[in-house]
Amino acid sequence: MRTGVWLVGARGSVAVTTVVGAAALARGLRPPVGCVTDSPQFSSVPLPAYGDLVFGGHDVAGVPLRERAERLALDGVVPAGLPAAVADDLDAAEARVRPGVDGADRRSQAEQVAGLAADLAAFREREGLGAVVVVNVSSTEPPAEPHPATADLALLDEALAAGVDALPVSSRYAYAALSAGCAYVDFTPSRGARLVALDQLALRRGVPYGGSDGKTGETLLKTALAPMFATRALRVTSWSGTNLLGGGDGATLADPAAAASKIDSKERVLQALLGHPVSGGVHIHNVPEMGEWKTAWDHVTFQGFLGTPMRMQFTWEGCDSALAAPLVLDLARLTARALAAGRRGCLPELAFFFKDPAGTQVHGLDEQHRMLVAWAAGLASGHAPA
Amino acid sequence: MRTGVWLVGARGSVAVTTVVGAAALARGLRPPVGCVTDSPQFSSVPLPAYGDLVFGGHDVAGVPLRERAERLALDGVVPAGLPAAVADDLDAAEARVRPGVDGADRRSQAEQVAGLAADLAAFREREGLGAVVVVNVSSTEPPAEPHPATADLALLDEALAAGVDALPVSSRYAYAALSAGCAYVDFTPSRGARLVALDQLALRRGVPYGGSDGKTGETLLKTALAPMFATRALRVTSWSGTNLLGGGDGATLADPAAAASKIDSKERVLQALLGHPVSGGVHIHNVPEMGEWKTAWDHVTFQGFLGTPMRMQFTWEGCDSALAAPLVLDLARLTARALAAGRRGCLPELAFFFKDPAGTQVHGLDEQHRMLVAWAAGLASGHAPA
Amino acid sequence: MRTGVWLVGARGSVAVTTVVGAAALARGLRPPVGCVTDSPQFSSVPLPAYGDLVFGGHDVAGVPLRERAERLALDGVVPAGLPAAVADDLDAAEARVRPGVDGADRRSQAEQVAGLAADLAAFREREGLGAVVVVNVSSTEPPAEPHPATADLALLDEALAAGVDALPVSSRYAYAALSAGCAYVDFTPSRGARLVALDQLALRRGVPYGGSDGKTGETLLKTALAPMFATRALRVTSWSGTNLLGGGDGATLADPAAAASKIDSKERVLQALLGHPVSGGVHIHNVPEMGEWKTAWDHVTFQGFLGTPMRMQFTWEGCDSALAAPLVLDLARLTARALAAGRRGCLPELAFFFKDPAGTQVHGLDEQHRMLVAWAAGLASGHAPA
Amino acid sequence: MRTGVWLVGARGSVAVTTVVGAAALARGLRPPVGCVTDSPQFSSVPLPAYGDLVFGGHDVAGVPLRERAERLALDGVVPAGLPAAVADDLDAAEARVRPGVDGADRRSQAEQVAGLAADLAAFREREGLGAVVVVNVSSTEPPAEPHPATADLALLDEALAAGVDALPVSSRYAYAALSAGCAYVDFTPSRGARLVALDQLALRRGVPYGGSDGKTGETLLKTALAPMFATRALRVTSWSGTNLLGGGDGATLADPAAAASKIDSKERVLQALLGHPVSGGVHIHNVPEMGEWKTAWDHVTFQGFLGTPMRMQFTWEGCDSALAAPLVLDLARLTARALAAGRRGCLPELAFFFKDPAGTQVHGLDEQHRMLVAWAAGLASGHAPA
Repeated sequence: MRTGVWLVGARGSVAVTTVVGAAALARGLRPPVGCVTDSPQFSSVPLPAYGDLVFGGHDVAGVPLRERAERLALDGVVPAGLPAAVADDLDAAEARVRPGVDGADRRSQAEQVAGLAADLAAFREREGLGAVVVVNVSSTEPPAEPHPATADLALLDEALAAGVDALPVSSRYAYAALSAGCAYVDFTPSRGARLVALDQLALRRGVPYGGSDGKTGETLLKTALAPMFATRALRVTSWSGTNLLGGGDGATLADPAAAASKIDSKERVLQALLGHPVSGGVHIHNVPEMGEWKTAWDHVTFQGFLGTPMRMQFTWEGCDSALAAPLVLDLARLTARALAAGRRGCLPELAFFFKDPAGTQVHGLDEQHRMLVAWAAGLASGHAPA
Repeated sequence: MRTGVWLVGARGSVAVTTVVGAAALARGLRPPVGCVTDSPQFSSVPLPAYGDLVFGGHDVAGVPLRERAERLALDGVVPAGLPAAVADDLDAAEARVRPGVDGADRRSQAEQVAGLAADLAAFREREGLGAVVVVNVSSTEPPAEPHPATADLALLDEALAAGVDALPVSSRYAYAALSAGCAYVDFTPSRGARLVALDQLALRRGVPYGGSDGKTGETLLKTALAPMFATRALRVTSWSGTNLLGGGDGATLADPAAAASKIDSKERVLQALLGHPVSGGVHIHNVPEMGEWKTAWDHVTFQGFLGTPMRMQFTWEGCDSALAAPLVLDLARLTARALAAGRRGCLPELAFFFKDPAGTQVHGLDEQHRMLVAWAAGLASGHAPA
Repeated sequence: MRTGVWLVGARGSVAVTTVVGAAALARGLRPPVGCVTDSPQFSSVPLPAYGDLVFGGHDVAGVPLRERAERLALDGVVPAGLPAAVADDLDAAEARVRPGVDGADRRSQAEQVAGLAADLAAFREREGLGAVVVVNVSSTEPPAEPHPATADLALLDEALAAGVDALPVSSRYAYAALSAGCAYVDFTPSRGARLVALDQLALRRGVPYGGSDGKTGETLLKTALAPMFATRALRVTSWSGTNLLGGGDGATLADPAAAASKIDSKERVLQALLGHPVSGGVHIHNVPEMGEWKTAWDHVTFQGFLGTPMRMQFTWEGCDSALAAPLVLDLARLTARALAAGRRGCLPELAFFFKDPAGTQVHGLDEQHRMLVAWAAGLASGHAPA
Repeated sequence: MRTGVWLVGARGSVAVTTVVGAAALARGLRPPVGCVTDSPQFSSVPLPAYGDLVFGGHDVAGVPLRERAERLALDGVVPAGLPAAVADDLDAAEARVRPGVDGADRRSQAEQVAGLAADLAAFREREGLGAVVVVNVSSTEPPAEPHPATADLALLDEALAAGVDALPVSSRYAYAALSAGCAYVDFTPSRGARLVALDQLALRRGVPYGGSDGKTGETLLKTALAPMFATRALRVTSWSGTNLLGGGDGATLADPAAAASKIDSKERVLQALLGHPVSGGVHIHNVPEMGEWKTAWDHVTFQGFLGTPMRMQFTWEGCDSALAAPLVLDLARLTARALAAGRRGCLPELAFFFKDPAGTQVHGLDEQHRMLVAWAAGLASGHAPA
């Protein structure tokens, strides 16, 4: 069955890499490297095929997808030649992109949400889609305390009706998605659906949501390595992380306010895994020359037997969009299936994909993986646990 | 109950660090960093207390334990002052050290085995011990094909009786241990109890054995990181490991024949975890100036989405003896309990501690940890699974 | 001839390591590793012997030198046992420590300077010293624009006489040193003697001064490596430096204002060596657990032939005080000789030792070394170039 | 004036990158990154322009240059699109490639040398070239003791006339080049012109030669960093180098005999720079997946003041051919000028480019650079020092 994947930030690097990749996989041009749901453990789960995914999305600006894809090929994010080979798919997705909302939007938030929801409904209808999943892959927004009205759906609706600006941008998209009967996934650290009122909305509308902040690099390694120190009873005394990044992300995160939310979720992870606070911290430095590539250097000091001090360090050099895109596909496929299976509300079982998993404190990568596989098996068998 | 821990290689760095550490823990001088069995998951397992462990051992040479401990303090392996604080314990252990066997021994192998077993029986009796565990922490021996007679216990006994040299040194210790009713653990990559005939002996005598090759550094990291690549479906294209080591180990492993056995078990791990062979290999370089410290550098290349090439590298700087010693204590405590609980034959559940786990192909660290915790829970409840 | 070495910050790690080390070298307890002026190129320069150096200094607080030295031994900065072996020298230096000045001093700056100068004169007289060199090894002070009155010595004296607070702390020490006929060296990035008025004072009093900011780690490497990229015509596109440090320095530099001055001098170096600005920057992160040790990680991207992008990275793990102390001895010996030889004003030939060399834009390490050797040869021959 | 550059190994990666690059520079398609002789210090030296270089060469096999260039573009060694943009130049060079000699050649060595020399003479005449420089960029040959006959030119000629196999392959090319009045440069560690008899030949024919073993990565860094340790009097206790390489070079050097010559010249460098032997060594590991890229990891331990142990490590990730090619152009331009200026015999002043510089023990990069600049200035002024 044709399944809609609606990308908030549809002309960004992650979105375009996702669309190029889905098309390449559907056409058999590349093997599904990096696609978790293509692993044998998921073979019995009835997930939508890559060729059944129909892409659309919102964006406030940006160059057309085909042009962006060509730039990504120049930067080595996607293989040279591939954008041309899937140009039709890129143009089809481009034709489905609608103007998004941002801080400069003069309409009331209620009007904005209604507009976004209407776009989603139109997408579903026009394309004859069985399920639509909205995935937020736009830029990180600065963190902020939730507005008091978001503590309850009735209050929130009242506030919105009264013209109050109660929702950050990401949550307007989440409201629109949930109210339109779509699943919602936040791949960024933004607020998205993580508000009491929106959780209530998801439960009422019977749709699932998940997030947040895709785990693609340094934190992925942390959640693989920190359990090693913990199970071996080695005491980590400091863990200092440095991230060099360019691209749009580097510029966005050079703003300390925006970086704060990303750094927060990165730091919480370690404490949860090790069971005690650890000095060192996470630092993000903007290096425009890095382009789409990201280098993380982590330096860890720890005590062995009798307190003997030891050290490890690692350097991770990855291409962020190429690490994120297959996870976006995984999340779209799994969440579409969850929606079809009647799953509603928060999906903590998706923790494997996120730095700051909604609905759970499980951060260990291996434990998250087992949780995911078990849950997917339930989806396969038709069980739809509440 | 007093429990015997008999160390083959009793005057080596690992053994002496173990004895110093057990004494320090028993006296409450240091917290049990690095001791897995002191973690909350093991709190209900009735393991011998550190103060109940009685140390003895075999060695063919070496300086007395107290002197060796002082040297280790100078090298930063154990804290300055600690050897003096536990001098009594070191002297008591030194007094229990008996001459071991080696390649230069002129007696028949049957006589050697009988002599070693007599030492063990005398140790148990004289010290009034409930259980004795023999742990091989001596130097790595060169790998060799097993003698045909080791394929069956009757054949082996016949061969030994006829004066045939059928067993490498480590296996003579294993034979002696098992026949004397002791548990046997091989912390080195040597052959030890891993012969069909000795497995039969363990089952007949009703004693357990485990091994081999303690997982203390580079391989520990591999077994934490490789599952990350596997569960994320990232294709590892090369994994090159370089180990710089000094000390006795560096000199021993400068001999390619001896290194072969260590490298073999290191390389097998990756293929098992990733599901396909990986180029790169493991290399060991002798750098005498490193002393007791070991630096491993691993360089990993992998493919992300659409084949995009990415890289990671890590450097691990650890003190080998200080990483090994708490595991020796863990193994002694767990194996003593298994012996008391009537467990016999191979103990695959100890895989968490080993590069080349006997009786299992499970190499993923987290899976090994769950296996260990579940098994220990069985020991706690008095279940003694065959 | 007995030579005075007066340390501002006399109870800090660098000062105490310097005093311990000079005593150990004078007594022949250790070889002079790290002492540049003990290299063959300087053998013909008549420098004061280690045993001829007499240490005193100012400090506002701190534990006695002997106690501090014992702590440094525990942290592995100086060898265990060495503080006890040179306890007499530590106590003698401790007895010569006088209270320094700081921001909380209620006296006028003129009074403070006069008091400091009196301490120096008393030191010289009491100890019968031929030359006295003041070396500032206290904590870094926040950078600030110079007061207008510092543009001319007459103006400055007028301002001080009028009770104006025209000088930062480091410059009060410099004024006191120069006016008391002592040479002055700033090992920190603080302002020190680098004011027009103080340069005039040094010329008038006929004494030399040098600085600033001892080059001990990351910047040392930069000044060795950047010339390699430059002479090979490889275009550096980014150079990102991360410094993890604990100790007093880590805490001080966690204050962005104080760090600014250190970072400034670090960043200027690269541009000077490469001939163009380079993105990336220098970052300092406080990790208290690092203690006296400092880890720097630098990540460099560069273009090779036809623009092909390449990378290098290095990790430097050093003990700051043990890197600084021998340079303090070198600077004291060389500057004492320069003073004796009638050299006055700024000493740009000391650039080899500094991140931000006074009086020169030469940053390449090798060129600085040649400059130093040639200048020292002049001191040897009795030439005292103006 | 048109200048011939004859490449031994004309269809290899280095050669093809050189030809592509020279064409790109001549056409102004790229800036001359990595070209030392394009630096301001060389602006007054009358060197041949890139557009005046005419390429030809010998090879025993290989795909045509245009095809090889396309593969290099796929591997990211040269920019995509560039091979097509300079296809005419590649085809022209391809048309000038002649079959080389190798171990399987059945002709006498005298006949081989005569044949090679005839190729060179024909190249010069047909193209109307003022000077021809032969540069060996073929695979490394295994090291071997020189044949006794190579100790004197008369002896050598006699031996060759008698059908004795006295010369390794690289030296046959060198003999041919020198006897044909061409300059000869060995960019590999092979023997080449470094035989007494060939030095005599170069002097007699009045032609210069230089070598050997282009310094492009790990050793380049060593010669920049080791002088830092030396001038700072820091005692290096071990320096362990690990090189991961694929491509043809990785396969060649997987043969320990061939690697020996490369490793030898790498290890000699450190001892020369530090003044004492250093443990650790250089190791080369073949990792086919690395393709044209090379990763070197060096781990250095050193003592600071009072023997305090410290460490540094670096990782260098470069593309070997893209590092070598601009140096080949530099060497061709400089040696052509030296030939024109009447310079003959060994050129130690080219040491800046080589791991194992002929005719000098100067290994420090900065000192080599000064030597080169001074010598080039002499070439500019028309001086032609013997």
